[in-house]
Amino acid sequence: ALKKEGVDVNTFESAVSFEEFKLNADGMIPVVTQDYRTNEVLMVAYMNKEAYEKTIETGKMTYWSRSRNELWCKGDTSGHFQYVKELKIDCDRDTILAKVHQIGVACHTGNRSCFFTDLVKKEYEDNNPLTVLLEDYNIILER
Amino acid sequence: ALKKEGVDVNTFESAVSFEEFKLNADGMIPVVTQDYRTNEVLMVAYMNKEAYEKTIETGKMTYWSRSRNELWCKGDTSGHFQYVKELKIDCDRDTILAKVHQIGVACHTGNRSCFFTDLVKKEYEDNNPLTVLLEDYNIILER
Repeated sequence: ALKKEGVDVNTFESAVSFEEFKLNADGMIPVVTQDYRTNEVLMVAYMNKEAYEKTIETGKMTYWSRSRNELWCKGDTSGHFQYVKELKIDCDRDTILAKVHQIGVACHTGNRSCFFTDLVKKEYEDNNPLTVLLEDYNIILER
Repeated sequence: ALKKEGVDVNTFESAVSFEEFKLNADGMIPVVTQDYRTNEVLMVAYMNKEAYEKTIETGKMTYWSRSRNELWCKGDTSGHFQYVKELKIDCDRDTILAKVHQIGVACHTGNRSCFFTDLVKKEYEDNNPLTVLLEDYNIILER
């Protein structure tokens, strides 16, 4: 409404409408949420049309909770909001990729990312000095 | 078989068995595939038990093609294999995160990642010198 009146508010407009997305058997689209600075994958959740529009409107990641069957603005209870930096859609329009500014942690367990359990790991050296520096840098930014 | 005979082959064992994963309505689990060096998300695809076991056995990402309804070893026709570096499962065991060494490109369109279409983008400065350096470094590595 404010926007129509020419007031500059911090909202987005989607370059592709939700109707053009390819939904899964539950009528939803999976969303991969990444830290916009480190590219760490934080979580995967789902959106329906209502959740997608709320995300665009508020600039805060809003999913559809499949367990509670309700709109779920991430952070509303925990304070761990995810501010939208970028949303992309993949080549067949069935998955969204979100880059966000994560406040606090993404996982309800207290881990920064929901992906903290190893299945298999091949030894490779992560001694790339730039990666190590970047990690230090991000830890400093957090403080 | 070779493994049983004590021959050292390049296979993995999964710390959590497929039976403990939570599958979607189609009996599959979504997989987010990331470049192991840059953390770029390359694609999202799906695995059933057969695909997961093949991935573990061969060390090459193998999905279940929902369109062709068959096992799909990524790269078998294109040469664009994805060698497994790490597999993780999320807190509620319904999504896999894979870090891979991507040969060539991940997307059938020729793009490195399937996520090349912007929906919304908030202006933020990616002038972090370390990120810029890291990107240069990875471009050099590719050559």
